Amino acid sequence: MRIDIISCVPKLLDSFFGHSILKRAQDKQHVEVYVHDLRDYATTKHRTVDDYAFGGGAGMVLQIEPIARCLRTLQAERSYDEVIYLTPDGALLQQRTVNTLSLAQNLILLCGHYKGVDQRVRDLFITKEISIGDYVLSGGELAAAVLADAIIRLVPGVLNDETSALTDSFQDDLLAPPVYTRPFVFEGHEVPAVLLSGHEANIEEWRHEQSLKRTAERRPDLLK
Amino acid sequence: MRIDIISCVPKLLDSFFGHSILKRAQDKQHVEVYVHDLRDYATTKHRTVDDYAFGGGAGMVLQIEPIARCLRTLQAERSYDEVIYLTPDGALLQQRTVNTLSLAQNLILLCGHYKGVDQRVRDLFITKEISIGDYVLSGGELAAAVLADAIIRLVPGVLNDETSALTDSFQDDLLAPPVYTRPFVFEGHEVPAVLLSGHEANIEEWRHEQSLKRTAERRPDLLK
Repeated sequence: MRIDIISCVPKLLDSFFGHSILKRAQDKQHVEVYVHDLRDYATTKHRTVDDYAFGGGAGMVLQIEPIARCLRTLQAERSYDEVIYLTPDGALLQQRTVNTLSLAQNLILLCGHYKGVDQRVRDLFITKEISIGDYVLSGGELAAAVLADAIIRLVPGVLNDETSALTDSFQDDLLAPPVYTRPFVFEGHEVPAVLLSGHEANIEEWRHEQSLKRTAERRPDLLK
Repeated sequence: MRIDIISCVPKLLDSFFGHSILKRAQDKQHVEVYVHDLRDYATTKHRTVDDYAFGGGAGMVLQIEPIARCLRTLQAERSYDEVIYLTPDGALLQQRTVNTLSLAQNLILLCGHYKGVDQRVRDLFITKEISIGDYVLSGGELAAAVLADAIIRLVPGVLNDETSALTDSFQDDLLAPPVYTRPFVFEGHEVPAVLLSGHEANIEEWRHEQSLKRTAERRPDLLK
């Protein structure tokens, strides 16, 4: 899988893809991630990529021309499954979408910044608009990092133990059960006895009950 | 405002707080952000902070002892409004919560990693559990960065133009209207004429209509 991220503040993303599982995923060649500086596609000598909004109001808008040039350069080199724009008014990201996107070959993620991109970018080039949640960030860079991370960890071979992702929250529409590790007693607080019983079926049953209970208490909407 | 982030992979967060508005917010002393390496609070010579889950199964669990030590060190120095654990089974983050948290003086954000933290950490130390969305990430670091970014941009003085945040999506339960900037014509595609009319009331009306239309089409749940 290849992911191309387009941003006007690419340095924001430096440390994410250089550490932890995202670095490992690239080192093992399960995935290639490229971050493109939108300013490299500017036409003015000051490398501007934004301008005031038509109609007035606070906040700058990313211009269509540098974005069009960058997208067309990439698309001339290979075909992309999706050109995704990260925006608070996009479709709310769900694990289901992440699962689907993890099967793609090539993805472009366009990061908004300031007040967002010129609407014509969305009309002409974007195939999917995604929001990572109902809140506003200072830019789409973090949203792109979130989406890339969620996708990349599902690419086969990336997680050390592939069964690990299957027991995550949301993969079965239930929240994950509580987890415990050593020490057995911390300042008088013990681990539930069943987890030390060695009785696999009982442990599974306890975990399933805890998942149901936690989901019912915290996210009844998931049980509908 | 002061934000302390606790992580077992602190390097993941290096580039976020060193660029863009998050850097500016710190330079102007509107906010202080500290990232603490959980391994500095480990007791073993290999600085381990995780161990196998009791009851078996894939994925490691962050141990309570290093976390307890780190939290107590911080809490001995000042009092915190909230000790927040970022976890997919927490309460879904909404702009409303971000607005409230932006009024806090001191916040601790604890990043999960692997399968999460020992449940006793949650029972004994955490005052608020937050999820940034219904999907799973490789760790809580990105989630903490998202939450910190959403909060910090609301701290007075951080955004260049304070009116800017008020026209964001969600601040009035509507999605933001489309935005346009130069050029007026891009490959035959023009900006809506009203935006160039100079007639402020008409522009405001058009924007409000577009916000309503977009919200009705994309997020009817926000209009309920």
